[in-house]
Amino acid sequence: MANSPREGFVHETELMVRAIGRVESPVQGTVDCDWGPVESRIVLDPQYRPGLQGLDDFSHVVVVTYLHLAAFDAARHLVRRPRGLATMPELGVFAQRAKDRPNPLGITVVRLLGVASYGVTVQGLDAIDGTPVLDLKPYLSGVPEEKLRRGWLADAEARRARGMLS
Amino acid sequence: MANSPREGFVHETELMVRAIGRVESPVQGTVDCDWGPVESRIVLDPQYRPGLQGLDDFSHVVVVTYLHLAAFDAARHLVRRPRGLATMPELGVFAQRAKDRPNPLGITVVRLLGVASYGVTVQGLDAIDGTPVLDLKPYLSGVPEEKLRRGWLADAEARRARGMLS
Repeated sequence: MANSPREGFVHETELMVRAIGRVESPVQGTVDCDWGPVESRIVLDPQYRPGLQGLDDFSHVVVVTYLHLAAFDAARHLVRRPRGLATMPELGVFAQRAKDRPNPLGITVVRLLGVASYGVTVQGLDAIDGTPVLDLKPYLSGVPEEKLRRGWLADAEARRARGMLS
Repeated sequence: MANSPREGFVHETELMVRAIGRVESPVQGTVDCDWGPVESRIVLDPQYRPGLQGLDDFSHVVVVTYLHLAAFDAARHLVRRPRGLATMPELGVFAQRAKDRPNPLGITVVRLLGVASYGVTVQGLDAIDGTPVLDLKPYLSGVPEEKLRRGWLADAEARRARGMLS
């Protein structure tokens, strides 16, 4: 990223964020795994723990993480085939949820299993052990299925269903 | 935030993010408005524009913004009543989507109106003109309505429906 020409774009700015806590997950390495059933804890910095008040009445939470092991390389990641599969089209990084992005921000809606003194327990968080957490927000609503178009993903799923992808 | 005791929490770290573009919105000031119909543009830094490839097949996009005018003050914002309404319960910042948060990150699912050479046009983005944009991701799916519990918000909506809130 740092080596790309700026082309006179005047808005380039570095902005600061801060870890409010960390993920404690049974998943230790950067593996491709099914995150759906994974249960993990988010341990908050003590100063932020009062901010959890009232969260326990929600079923789902939006977790914002800083994917500290990701590394964006424009030449490799700005446009690529999802998972490197030759059967997939070439897609821009903003049309994918790949982890190597200009800003390594993960946004995941997870099931809230519980709120504890130290933080929260959640299910389905796709972040390895030690990942910095930037924010938690209540999940309020989604886009109704019938109003959704899901681009290349819908195509890929349809092809997988027809046995064209293993 | 800076004045709070750290209590020996060893994970405190400052992390860097970078604007990939800016919001161009008809909404100029920090007003409370109905953002639903607002149409705005996200103008990307030229180096990132190839990353839009394939996004036009999606109906909705997750926009991550850096709410540059927000200012988190733990004494006022860590626990507060939504919109300062006496009729609302005291709630932690992580149980609300209030803009004054430990990290001023906005996450909004918007309708994608179009992809252009400079970036995208979207509807429903709750960010004022000039807001730095950190990321765009395709919106893939939501949590089904029947699996959702929405805590204090469901209560507040029910009370509003009964005329107890104006």
